[in-house]
Amino acid sequence: TTPAWRAQNRDRTSGPQAAQPPCRESVYMENLERIIDVGRGLVRGDLLLKNCRIVNVFSSKIEEANVIIANKKIVGIGDYEEADTIIDLEGAYLLPGFIDAHVHVESSMLTPFEFARAVGPLGVTSAIVDPHEIANVLGHDGIKFMLESSKNNHISLYFMLPSCVPATHMETSGATLLAEDIGYFMEKKWVKGLGEVMNYPGVLAKETQILEKIQLAKMKNSDGHAPGLSGKDLNAYVATGISTDHECLTPEEAMEKLARGMRILIREGSGAKNLDALIGIVTPQNCNRFMFCTDDRHPEDLANHEHINYSIRRAVEMGLDPMSAVKMATINVAEHYNIPRKGAIAPGYWADLVVVNDFKHFDIKKVFRSGELIAENYTFLARAKGEDPVNLRGSVNVGYFDRSKLTVADRGKSIRVINLIADQIVTTESIEAPTVVHGNVVSDPARDLLKIAVIERHMATGNVSVGFVRGFGLKHGAIASTVSHDSHNIIVVGVSDDDMERAVQELILSQGGKIVIDGGETKALLPLPIGGLMSRLGLPEVAAQKRTLEAAARALGTTLTSPFMTLSFLALPVIPHLKITDQGLVDVIKFDFVPLFVE
Amino acid sequence: TTPAWRAQNRDRTSGPQAAQPPCRESVYMENLERIIDVGRGLVRGDLLLKNCRIVNVFSSKIEEANVIIANKKIVGIGDYEEADTIIDLEGAYLLPGFIDAHVHVESSMLTPFEFARAVGPLGVTSAIVDPHEIANVLGHDGIKFMLESSKNNHISLYFMLPSCVPATHMETSGATLLAEDIGYFMEKKWVKGLGEVMNYPGVLAKETQILEKIQLAKMKNSDGHAPGLSGKDLNAYVATGISTDHECLTPEEAMEKLARGMRILIREGSGAKNLDALIGIVTPQNCNRFMFCTDDRHPEDLANHEHINYSIRRAVEMGLDPMSAVKMATINVAEHYNIPRKGAIAPGYWADLVVVNDFKHFDIKKVFRSGELIAENYTFLARAKGEDPVNLRGSVNVGYFDRSKLTVADRGKSIRVINLIADQIVTTESIEAPTVVHGNVVSDPARDLLKIAVIERHMATGNVSVGFVRGFGLKHGAIASTVSHDSHNIIVVGVSDDDMERAVQELILSQGGKIVIDGGETKALLPLPIGGLMSRLGLPEVAAQKRTLEAAARALGTTLTSPFMTLSFLALPVIPHLKITDQGLVDVIKFDFVPLFVE
Repeated sequence: TTPAWRAQNRDRTSGPQAAQPPCRESVYMENLERIIDVGRGLVRGDLLLKNCRIVNVFSSKIEEANVIIANKKIVGIGDYEEADTIIDLEGAYLLPGFIDAHVHVESSMLTPFEFARAVGPLGVTSAIVDPHEIANVLGHDGIKFMLESSKNNHISLYFMLPSCVPATHMETSGATLLAEDIGYFMEKKWVKGLGEVMNYPGVLAKETQILEKIQLAKMKNSDGHAPGLSGKDLNAYVATGISTDHECLTPEEAMEKLARGMRILIREGSGAKNLDALIGIVTPQNCNRFMFCTDDRHPEDLANHEHINYSIRRAVEMGLDPMSAVKMATINVAEHYNIPRKGAIAPGYWADLVVVNDFKHFDIKKVFRSGELIAENYTFLARAKGEDPVNLRGSVNVGYFDRSKLTVADRGKSIRVINLIADQIVTTESIEAPTVVHGNVVSDPARDLLKIAVIERHMATGNVSVGFVRGFGLKHGAIASTVSHDSHNIIVVGVSDDDMERAVQELILSQGGKIVIDGGETKALLPLPIGGLMSRLGLPEVAAQKRTLEAAARALGTTLTSPFMTLSFLALPVIPHLKITDQGLVDVIKFDFVPLFVE
Repeated sequence: TTPAWRAQNRDRTSGPQAAQPPCRESVYMENLERIIDVGRGLVRGDLLLKNCRIVNVFSSKIEEANVIIANKKIVGIGDYEEADTIIDLEGAYLLPGFIDAHVHVESSMLTPFEFARAVGPLGVTSAIVDPHEIANVLGHDGIKFMLESSKNNHISLYFMLPSCVPATHMETSGATLLAEDIGYFMEKKWVKGLGEVMNYPGVLAKETQILEKIQLAKMKNSDGHAPGLSGKDLNAYVATGISTDHECLTPEEAMEKLARGMRILIREGSGAKNLDALIGIVTPQNCNRFMFCTDDRHPEDLANHEHINYSIRRAVEMGLDPMSAVKMATINVAEHYNIPRKGAIAPGYWADLVVVNDFKHFDIKKVFRSGELIAENYTFLARAKGEDPVNLRGSVNVGYFDRSKLTVADRGKSIRVINLIADQIVTTESIEAPTVVHGNVVSDPARDLLKIAVIERHMATGNVSVGFVRGFGLKHGAIASTVSHDSHNIIVVGVSDDDMERAVQELILSQGGKIVIDGGETKALLPLPIGGLMSRLGLPEVAAQKRTLEAAARALGTTLTSPFMTLSFLALPVIPHLKITDQGLVDVIKFDFVPLFVE
């Protein structure tokens, strides 16, 4: 007799139920039946990859065989011969698709859709995404946007829910997310747990807010972020259930955390680079406790073909065996984050695959996702899937602002100055005599002493705070950005109040971005209309805009490698020593506000 | 201000809500707060284990330190000094509690409660249980009994739901479990997926019944059971999502299954022993793909202190490094079966711990479960937890039965005879002339040709089938059992119809068990009133009864090592060659019934 589910399925082409889609169970059963037949070699598959050198992360061996794919899944490994499409790999290596274990998509300034088109050709077919930045700007709506725009994406994005929004009580963010706010998302299938718990002092102090979030995630994972934490405090932090760390700086720190049960994410990002320091402790025996992550990768690095593929290559250059390196980018991530049937080449696994010609440089030739060839020779191929229209409100909501808000009346006292350290995000503080003109403290490019301001842009509070910074080296003009961690208020630094005012007003008009102003004119603008963080354009355009932007900033006289990255961390009051938020100057060591003028 | 949850919690000792238990969240938060304080060393813990050699399955190293425990969990490793109870281990090794990856509790003839008291002292603090036997007898009620009686147990039992009830269509079981029947249990927290899918021909033939069960478990695990399956058929079987196998006989078979993504459970049971053959393929690099299981362990082996502890010791004797052996019995099982926070000694992990004096013989000194000392020197210590009363209907429900049902009228033809092979569960078939007395075919001890019968005991169908068997060697009397895989009908073999009738009637009266009858008298009876499978008594009593039983059987003349185990497999029509069910003789190769008399 015809089983009930099958009879029901036949109905869909005729009869009154014709308009009904088949139920999920029916589709699943039909797929399963076909998979069994293809696996047994009884019927032809969809795609046959011939003459592969299969990198088998289970047996830790290279296997020479064919791979048959059907219904988006790998179905068999062996001497299969027939399929609708046959590709001869001619002995090339076949790897599982890479999975980035921790990434803030916003750092690429790309939407999830464009991010996929950027990293897919680099072999990344899945990523664990922490939408921390957009959550600080648009809260619940921001997270929802990221989840929704990942649904029909070219790669698979899984989410960890931001745990620290706002980052501190000393800044105005666009949202405050309590446990009940993120609880809405926690049950969702694509959500894998709680994002990096940066507020480790809060955990140790047993703050109810943060413990409630950890409790919420207790059936999923909680990511950690605890640089330098050690000994008994580390025990306490880990005992709450936090199970990863990507902030290790030294082998000793990583080995202690590993011994306490944490999985170690070795980060190689655009800013923070820990791979060279840590990779020496990975062995074939312990490698299942390690993964790779990028955390933050900027568009120029992506355009330069550097993502998880770079981490693998670099690890092998540093002496790690290639099999362990591949495991760190694939099965280890899938198993820790509970992503079923990804990260390996085996029957029943999703056909996310990467073809490389050798097992040393990992130069990527082809990338398949769910059995579809999505990229070849670093070029994205897959047909457009109908990008989800961005349905988000504008995020730049500034109260009345003009240059008068930037005026600092002299009080005849010394001032605190933020001092940059080249290519670092930590700063120092100096106490200096101000440069005063007509009774106001002003920028003085001759002393490399520039005015810096943070303008609240979420709630139209009108908050503006002003300070002074040394190290940018601008000789004229101003630069400004709506990307400024973690609250992403507008941050601006400049030589003249006129140019600073203009920079801020242009960013308000463009609803976000990064800008260079000189003599009242816009020299370069990188628009970031989505939350003030992400572009609507693709990687090539964004990378080009970024190059133009940085060239324009250099033309103002700065010698910093990444002036906008440096700028974006000056409002982050968790990195020592002196920072500035929309509410004032913050001494991070004291974890409190300090006045500009020193008594 | 006092957080809401804490204020609520305070209410429980006074005011109108005093009778309400605190909500789970409140308890969780209080525990978490205390755990943080104990971890940080700010307040004293519950239990301190001093001077441990900690076997760290994450770092693969032995760590000399103290372990502090609070709220049933390991909270810290380090130089802790204070706790309510302090035990000095004087340099003994501290291991995570063992987890049996696959076991049928019914084979111990003990209830889950008594099973815990038997294996707890052997270091087993958790087990993955497949209640396949009781499910064949009492279906849904049987599974529910096992789940319920595990709730307040001394060790943690997790469940895989039986996938093949009944085992075949050629026998009468006490229940038929379809996907919708086991679906009721699948969402439960303690249920970890689908039990061993023995019906691999059914999977390959795409039988809807079995595929529906696999579909049901697709967000959990499905265990495999596919002896000898290889090549494309193995691909197809694995592609459905089945992820383990415990039936490998050779290293080659195990390595092929491992390469296809299966985790390999190395079985060392009372009957099937595969450890010596397989252990050589385990290495520190691949050991995370392996686990230990017992499958079936009989009471006499448990009384002899052999369970997972034996597997570890034997593996090390065979040359495996002890760290890998411990991982196979601990973290590997917890991670595969998604048992959070078990299988390791690290902050936040449940305090399930085993103390041994050396890292070679693994002689067990102490066992802790959830921070409680439950056993010492193989003696169970924990206080009784109030055993759940067994609330199950009687399972022996036989239609009218007397010796007339055993009569076989001669038809003047040859008969098929089941031939035992010593100490194996496979049989052969011979065609022979019957011994006829007064027109009936009878047992003939001189030819070692004995009558065997299977009496249906679930539905009172009145089914009785009679055949003949060579190899038991009984000279007089009869033996019978309500344990006969997989349907567990009554099986009886004997020299005289009188004694066979008496044996069956006694088992009906006792509602199940194993019995030896001679000259109309009961020589030994092991009562198994729970489903006809399990005793109400503890291990020492059951092991003693078993010894008495086997001695009584030997007194009838049998020379078999385990006559009752041999008997229990003669009704299992999936093991070649000739078997007998309540519906008749089965030729397992043809997978069909065959008549007693040969045409």
